[in-house]
Amino acid sequence: MRILILGGDGYLGWPTVMRFSERGHEVTVVDNFSRRRWHHEHSTDSLTPIRPLAERIDVWRETSGNEVKHFIGNIEDGEFLDEVVAEVLPEAVVHYGEQPSAPYSMISRRHAVHTQHTNVIGTLNLLFSMRDRVPNAHLVKLGTMGEYGTPNIDIEEGYIEIEHKGRKDTLPYPKLPGSLYHLSKVHDSHNIHFACRIWGMRATDLNQGVVYGVETDETALDERLATRFDYDEIFGTALNRFCVQAVIGQPLTVYGKGGQTRGFLNIRDTLQCVELAVDNPAALGEMRVFNQFTEQFTVLELAKLVQQAGGEMGYDVSIESFPNPRVEMEEHYYNAVNTKLHDLGLQPHLLGPELVQSVLKTTEQYKDRVIDRAILPKTTWQPGELEGRPTFARSK
Amino acid sequence: MRILILGGDGYLGWPTVMRFSERGHEVTVVDNFSRRRWHHEHSTDSLTPIRPLAERIDVWRETSGNEVKHFIGNIEDGEFLDEVVAEVLPEAVVHYGEQPSAPYSMISRRHAVHTQHTNVIGTLNLLFSMRDRVPNAHLVKLGTMGEYGTPNIDIEEGYIEIEHKGRKDTLPYPKLPGSLYHLSKVHDSHNIHFACRIWGMRATDLNQGVVYGVETDETALDERLATRFDYDEIFGTALNRFCVQAVIGQPLTVYGKGGQTRGFLNIRDTLQCVELAVDNPAALGEMRVFNQFTEQFTVLELAKLVQQAGGEMGYDVSIESFPNPRVEMEEHYYNAVNTKLHDLGLQPHLLGPELVQSVLKTTEQYKDRVIDRAILPKTTWQPGELEGRPTFARSK
Repeated sequence: MRILILGGDGYLGWPTVMRFSERGHEVTVVDNFSRRRWHHEHSTDSLTPIRPLAERIDVWRETSGNEVKHFIGNIEDGEFLDEVVAEVLPEAVVHYGEQPSAPYSMISRRHAVHTQHTNVIGTLNLLFSMRDRVPNAHLVKLGTMGEYGTPNIDIEEGYIEIEHKGRKDTLPYPKLPGSLYHLSKVHDSHNIHFACRIWGMRATDLNQGVVYGVETDETALDERLATRFDYDEIFGTALNRFCVQAVIGQPLTVYGKGGQTRGFLNIRDTLQCVELAVDNPAALGEMRVFNQFTEQFTVLELAKLVQQAGGEMGYDVSIESFPNPRVEMEEHYYNAVNTKLHDLGLQPHLLGPELVQSVLKTTEQYKDRVIDRAILPKTTWQPGELEGRPTFARSK
Repeated sequence: MRILILGGDGYLGWPTVMRFSERGHEVTVVDNFSRRRWHHEHSTDSLTPIRPLAERIDVWRETSGNEVKHFIGNIEDGEFLDEVVAEVLPEAVVHYGEQPSAPYSMISRRHAVHTQHTNVIGTLNLLFSMRDRVPNAHLVKLGTMGEYGTPNIDIEEGYIEIEHKGRKDTLPYPKLPGSLYHLSKVHDSHNIHFACRIWGMRATDLNQGVVYGVETDETALDERLATRFDYDEIFGTALNRFCVQAVIGQPLTVYGKGGQTRGFLNIRDTLQCVELAVDNPAALGEMRVFNQFTEQFTVLELAKLVQQAGGEMGYDVSIESFPNPRVEMEEHYYNAVNTKLHDLGLQPHLLGPELVQSVLKTTEQYKDRVIDRAILPKTTWQPGELEGRPTFARSK
């Protein structure tokens, strides 16, 4: 199959590229290296050393014998994207090409506007390119469980049947996103739904939980094929941060009460899910939504897992509550349905002490590369305390 | 009260400016004349002659003795908007400053991207400016009933209580918008809801039906104070198109079966509603949604009203079904709640033969200005038949 992967230089993009290439598909990467640039802007970096894309592709050719094509450019540029789609004529497009960080979107107006522009316009350009060039191709779009927020009812997969005043309809599940980044994903979902309803396109929206881990069958083949490990306040996730803190001897910083419950999954399962979606495409006119996570944890449970696994490796790990930089509920109902990917055959890799220890070992290996300054949050959801943003006089 | 009106040179914006000025408020207009520019691009124009903004303001000063300030600029430019908000320090912001046409958003990718960029980024800039400069001010945002689409259950005002698997929550009403323009309004609604939930701002989202009429107490004072009357395929609405067709002797073109039901209201009631919203602000942290229409009609019922009223004025009016350029249901359930504005005191001006005849008379008065070419739809919701857009070869 001809598969186009947008954002194929990123944390999940690059392992996805290798996986589909390994399976014998013709894979083409599009990337503009914005993730690398955003790290430069914040003087942060992946804990694992990341090779330039062209080198990764060379090493992959040497290792696997498979060729991967790539185009460097920005999908906000509709002409560029159109040329790529016309040349590749993909049968499936896996779209990771977005600004993926909630804190980044909350730094300042500039960052918020950049996030919504990049994500919404990039995806809109893609919908037009696919409509006009490859109307039967399958769009597999990375969404986020964060689109739903934390409603007081069970979270269904994209749609909910509502009975109201004696009538019934199945409608898009209402969204309560918690950041301007999460909002951009909600906007994307509505635009994609429209393209399927009105233009008869086919799409799968993967509402993904928080991904952990760096090892896949392919990254394990050669150190130069490694994917990113971000632990900084902007692009890092809780488990990565906790592992770095454990190894460098800092307390694990749980935001607020730590009762925030989220869905999580192993990077190996991300690859499984994306493969299952591509191998079992949506019907024409259908926008399918899968909730892509394997387990639910509170942030405090996650910290305790790291504390225990670290303890067994000889680290003395403490847990500390840190003032929550976000505006979010710290204790809430949370129960999200995630049966559709299981029905397609997903075999989850659950989070146990073994996996946490393997992440701790990766962290040990690159301990000298840890940038301490980048770990604690400086970006807050409430205005007025922000680095780099002038504060203004307020009326009344 | 200090009131900032974005899009104050437009169809509803200009009458709103005069109304609040008449009531003794300090009114400031922001506009970048994009509506006038879009008409230039399509070689179309308002049926009623429209004076330049500065002349309108001069005539209003002569007529009423009231001063109105204005700033010319683009709210997509966050620095510009920030300066305006800092100088005016508004207590209420009435936001009409958006691309308001569904067909415009469907012409091509360029038009779609422009619509979503203008509307979403302009509103996002406004939220930041208000948050940082006037956090207690009230945002009154023009939304559209088209955000809801045509679900098979009753349409509530912005939110719906959902009982699901034994639990309950009140959540944003699910949206099924019918064009990329309507989608931009859905995106706005989500962004505004976030600003209220997370930043504690206050907003009223007026989900407006289709407005008809050109006469308000203030436009009637002097011909030079007139507001726009659009009847072209891009910016015109059904009632205006029908009135023009009746007067120039063309059949009224009903798209498809004409069973499309929508909410409608008189421009006089738009002014009432906006005034009621400004006079009764939302609470801090609240995003209030009002469904702003007074009556529901099918498009065919509207055509019949014009046929009858035209007949009484001596016109021989026929009705013809025209291939629907849109993708929409032509027969469907539609029942939308609209009690909140009535509860605040709205006194509706309902659509009767008298009002239709007054619109027909306006049309007669400016009959010589009718541009025939602009009336029938050339913009289609399905790709492949579009003027000015290259058609591409498609893979399978």
